Amino acid sequence: MSLSAHLSNTARDIYEAIRDDPIVSPHGHCDPQWFAANDRFADPATLIVKPDHYLFRMLYSRGVALEDLGIGNSENPPDPRNVFRLFARHWHLFLGTPSHVWLNHTFRHVFGIDETLNVATADRIYDTIEAALGTPEFRPRALYERFGIEVLATTDAAGDDLAAHRQIAASGWPGRIIPTFRPDGVLDPMGANFTRDVRTMVSGAGGDPNSFDDYLSALRARRAAFRAAGATASDHAIEAPETYWLDPAKAAALYARGLEGALARDEARVFYGHMLTEMAQMSVEDGLVMQLHAGARRNTNSGIYDRFGPDMGADIPLATRWSPGLEPLLNRVGNDHRFTLIAFTLDETTYARELAPMAGHWPCLLIGPPWWFHDSLAGIARYFDQVVETAGYQNLAGFNDDTRAFMSIPARHDVWRLGVAEHLARQMGRGIFGPADAVRIAKDLSTGAARRAYRLETSGS
Amino acid sequence: MSLSAHLSNTARDIYEAIRDDPIVSPHGHCDPQWFAANDRFADPATLIVKPDHYLFRMLYSRGVALEDLGIGNSENPPDPRNVFRLFARHWHLFLGTPSHVWLNHTFRHVFGIDETLNVATADRIYDTIEAALGTPEFRPRALYERFGIEVLATTDAAGDDLAAHRQIAASGWPGRIIPTFRPDGVLDPMGANFTRDVRTMVSGAGGDPNSFDDYLSALRARRAAFRAAGATASDHAIEAPETYWLDPAKAAALYARGLEGALARDEARVFYGHMLTEMAQMSVEDGLVMQLHAGARRNTNSGIYDRFGPDMGADIPLATRWSPGLEPLLNRVGNDHRFTLIAFTLDETTYARELAPMAGHWPCLLIGPPWWFHDSLAGIARYFDQVVETAGYQNLAGFNDDTRAFMSIPARHDVWRLGVAEHLARQMGRGIFGPADAVRIAKDLSTGAARRAYRLETSGS
Amino acid sequence: MSLSAHLSNTARDIYEAIRDDPIVSPHGHCDPQWFAANDRFADPATLIVKPDHYLFRMLYSRGVALEDLGIGNSENPPDPRNVFRLFARHWHLFLGTPSHVWLNHTFRHVFGIDETLNVATADRIYDTIEAALGTPEFRPRALYERFGIEVLATTDAAGDDLAAHRQIAASGWPGRIIPTFRPDGVLDPMGANFTRDVRTMVSGAGGDPNSFDDYLSALRARRAAFRAAGATASDHAIEAPETYWLDPAKAAALYARGLEGALARDEARVFYGHMLTEMAQMSVEDGLVMQLHAGARRNTNSGIYDRFGPDMGADIPLATRWSPGLEPLLNRVGNDHRFTLIAFTLDETTYARELAPMAGHWPCLLIGPPWWFHDSLAGIARYFDQVVETAGYQNLAGFNDDTRAFMSIPARHDVWRLGVAEHLARQMGRGIFGPADAVRIAKDLSTGAARRAYRLETSGS
Repeated sequence: MSLSAHLSNTARDIYEAIRDDPIVSPHGHCDPQWFAANDRFADPATLIVKPDHYLFRMLYSRGVALEDLGIGNSENPPDPRNVFRLFARHWHLFLGTPSHVWLNHTFRHVFGIDETLNVATADRIYDTIEAALGTPEFRPRALYERFGIEVLATTDAAGDDLAAHRQIAASGWPGRIIPTFRPDGVLDPMGANFTRDVRTMVSGAGGDPNSFDDYLSALRARRAAFRAAGATASDHAIEAPETYWLDPAKAAALYARGLEGALARDEARVFYGHMLTEMAQMSVEDGLVMQLHAGARRNTNSGIYDRFGPDMGADIPLATRWSPGLEPLLNRVGNDHRFTLIAFTLDETTYARELAPMAGHWPCLLIGPPWWFHDSLAGIARYFDQVVETAGYQNLAGFNDDTRAFMSIPARHDVWRLGVAEHLARQMGRGIFGPADAVRIAKDLSTGAARRAYRLETSGS
Repeated sequence: MSLSAHLSNTARDIYEAIRDDPIVSPHGHCDPQWFAANDRFADPATLIVKPDHYLFRMLYSRGVALEDLGIGNSENPPDPRNVFRLFARHWHLFLGTPSHVWLNHTFRHVFGIDETLNVATADRIYDTIEAALGTPEFRPRALYERFGIEVLATTDAAGDDLAAHRQIAASGWPGRIIPTFRPDGVLDPMGANFTRDVRTMVSGAGGDPNSFDDYLSALRARRAAFRAAGATASDHAIEAPETYWLDPAKAAALYARGLEGALARDEARVFYGHMLTEMAQMSVEDGLVMQLHAGARRNTNSGIYDRFGPDMGADIPLATRWSPGLEPLLNRVGNDHRFTLIAFTLDETTYARELAPMAGHWPCLLIGPPWWFHDSLAGIARYFDQVVETAGYQNLAGFNDDTRAFMSIPARHDVWRLGVAEHLARQMGRGIFGPADAVRIAKDLSTGAARRAYRLETSGS
Repeated sequence: MSLSAHLSNTARDIYEAIRDDPIVSPHGHCDPQWFAANDRFADPATLIVKPDHYLFRMLYSRGVALEDLGIGNSENPPDPRNVFRLFARHWHLFLGTPSHVWLNHTFRHVFGIDETLNVATADRIYDTIEAALGTPEFRPRALYERFGIEVLATTDAAGDDLAAHRQIAASGWPGRIIPTFRPDGVLDPMGANFTRDVRTMVSGAGGDPNSFDDYLSALRARRAAFRAAGATASDHAIEAPETYWLDPAKAAALYARGLEGALARDEARVFYGHMLTEMAQMSVEDGLVMQLHAGARRNTNSGIYDRFGPDMGADIPLATRWSPGLEPLLNRVGNDHRFTLIAFTLDETTYARELAPMAGHWPCLLIGPPWWFHDSLAGIARYFDQVVETAGYQNLAGFNDDTRAFMSIPARHDVWRLGVAEHLARQMGRGIFGPADAVRIAKDLSTGAARRAYRLETSGS
């Protein structure tokens, strides 16, 4: 079942103008080590099922034990083939979800499989994938090239040594794999390893961890190291977009007590919110584009968290308020043309109510594409419906796949391009603009806007 | 005007595959006494207009006095024919609302009336209905059979003696009318008769009302009595989905003070929230499916409430947060496969933001169908648009009509089936799946999902 | 590009039935002095670009300095032609926004310009407009007549002397330009000039500013003066719909301290909320329709506010709760048939969740049309989709253009009529009603509902 076969003629014309564009992937969670080592990927279950929280959360919701999928520190891991069979037996659960679309696309376009996944075909599909993975054409670098990827950003903790990125650069391979600076662990005093990681970072930069100034300097040094490794952006994953601007003595005092683990939750939020504004100010200086992913309540299932750790499918979006929480940050640097801030929301009510009005005013602000649960055909339609009339197209940041499922990258960009084509065809059908504008906007949403938003045109690999 | 005549060919094929399915009605507010006594229904105004808050609220909003509809303890009740005429004169107010669709469907399919209701036809339609109601074919049991109802759940206070249900069972009539356990009156210390009803319940079960343990035992006994009378589910109507888990001593202390009417509002909420978790735990034990209807602020018009009491059309939905309020309950029993929780919301923003992500993770959780103001064609379309991509179809609980308007039951299920057909046809039109999957999902949403969610397959009448 | 050329046949039939209806404009921000003096409008940039916050906010968001648009007290104002060229160079930013639709419509239908605005055509278009503005046909009164305006309401501070309105009345010109009573400045103790303006108002009415009773009397006197000048409505712009009803001594005490500037923010909100209820009570007495525009957080960009003042494009909508904040007011006067309250929201989630249920119950309440960011084709579609099923059509207040851009008035009403036609055609396509009902509802939404809601039928010019 191919979605593009169902497009109207108008939409198909737009889609065909962008279908084969290169893939610009400015935000995601692939492992740079894949491209450094260029080893073969593991078996089909370990590659496709086990790491994909879209898949195992749904299976879990309908009664599949995570252990049976090979998740958790089980001493007797299940046979990957059995995991794949179990997955195939429940494949009908995914009808109507983007996972169904993505995986069908991956099977067909990456592995050349035209069969529908079910109990009868599971073994044959498993074998086909397994055989492919053993060939040179399915090594990470070969797939990167075959997928037409122009640039792929990873997401890396502030303390990461970026060795994999350096190894890729030193290898002479022309692929562009760039890191993204993700400093939440050393900004949020409620983070599990805040004190340890801050001390390591500041000491590593030759500073005194007890000095707030040295802490800021160490952060600047890490940002510089990321930029030297090709980074063009930073990223923050925060529960609520809450920012502050404190006077220096107050910030330093909170820092000192934070290092001792002595902050109350409210104080920790204030410090973190202040540091987000500090990060924005550093972005003005060094040009790193700032990303805010806000609105997920993490690890809401304590039993699952205790047994399996974070990212196990129990993160639930929260009602989010972008204004006034973002105002302290915006009122420090939001009028500065050197600054770019890209906001991602899990609360779709903020598209029309807050983000589009804000992006249609603040010079710094761009709206990120539909994120996570909303990265889907209907989610994309709602996004365009609700942001464009107030923010226009030029205040959007294009697409990112935001995935750790490398095989699904072409599928995700394809669904976005289908969604773009359907939206623009609908606009044409209402007389909002004609085909020339539609194709121009489509090209921009496909690649141009992401390159521009993430400043990927000016820094080369 | 028949809605089904306007379906696309694709949608019509799906609709016709489910149009004549039996009616599974697992949640609603019909009076079991109707089926116990099997008396004729009252006149058309008393049957159709007076008990339907969808109708009289709209009439009231545009200037009709409730007294003129025969509502309230008026000493001189209006002539039913005049009530019906008054209603007919304002029938245009309902254009575009589901009431218009439901009542047209009822007129045509239940009473064989093809005329449009207006001032000129009011008397003729009244006479037609009045004449029909006098015939054996329009007695409650005959209509139940003619409507093709497979099971009909009523909603009954915890202290109900279930005499009507026993009478139906003893009568030998094969209709399946089952009760639903609705204990809010004995759980919420802010309820008007909490102390009285708790004392009655606990004493009636042979316990000491001053003992928290006896209170819990009495609740267990009532649940058992409901199960013995055929119940498969409980139901809660709560303003906000707020749950807690207290240590036993704390809960017992709140109970003791609650019995004395001595709890502050906040304390009462905590006790009620704790008892919701207790109810969930009892559901694990006894298998009653738990329903949560959350998000209505009740009786907001104090003048109307003082004169006419509750349920007079002044209940207004509230912004609702399902997460984190439900976490204490879910973290007690949400991973237990014996437990089913069905959540109904009046805040559509929670479909995509909270309920679909939660249902797509927690094994216990299913999303109830569009409820109350959202049980409508556009409401159904928004529901599918926002829940399916994240929760799939298998985390949905099918349909319930939730009505006290018995005559409208076929109409309400028909509108749902139209909405299902339109949604699935749209999915097919995008290439999401083909006709075989569409019809299979349609059959499930029409009857199968409700039977499964409410465990109606395993317990017979 | 004409939008109406893209309507379906069904929609076009509806649209053509209302396209040429007169324009009823019961709420907006045109300057009555235009019609009093009937001078020519200024140059194209000053007329079209500079006063339109929809335009300059978007330009600012993509890097255009407000000073370069002639905004702010610059000592060297830019040449209007250069402003227009700068605007033309950025015209592509507006693709997909209602501004694009409105301005294209204005160019074509007001000025006869068929060219697309861009760098190459900017001067020619500028010259065409400039030449037109010099002719008698483009004077304010002539345009009012050519636009087919039946009535145009301005918005005027409580202390306004209404001289322009009196001058229009005295001129013998038959145009109906009526004021609207906007008393927020003398109701909100947090307002910049509250004390000064209250003192002026009360003294001007012959009262003692230190007397709360005299304050109320002065407000009554101002309302009477507005009614005498033709006003049929009042208007409030509030951040949150929060109302109260205090006992008189408490209200008087807050008033006394408010005059001294001594109220804390929370106290000021309570006083303001109480005064909203007072205004509602005065509306019961004098018949002025009460409008509430709620939900904008004003002046969020402090740098812009400090340099340019208010209304500079940095007002951002807030999540809004209509219930329970409005209950104190509604419970005082909401059941009184003499009272009409029209509610406008910037939080679209309140359409289906709060405003439609409330309007479908309270006799006083009507829902205002999509406002500000939501006055757009997609915004109109969402509005109808979410309000009609619960509130019907008769609880809607028709349309208002709410603009200070006089030239855009025909365009805005035209977009509304297109949106109405599209919505009603969609309803017909589903079988909700037939063409006779559709055209009747369309006529009502085009003009009748606004006349009725604002009581414009009974008071003549």
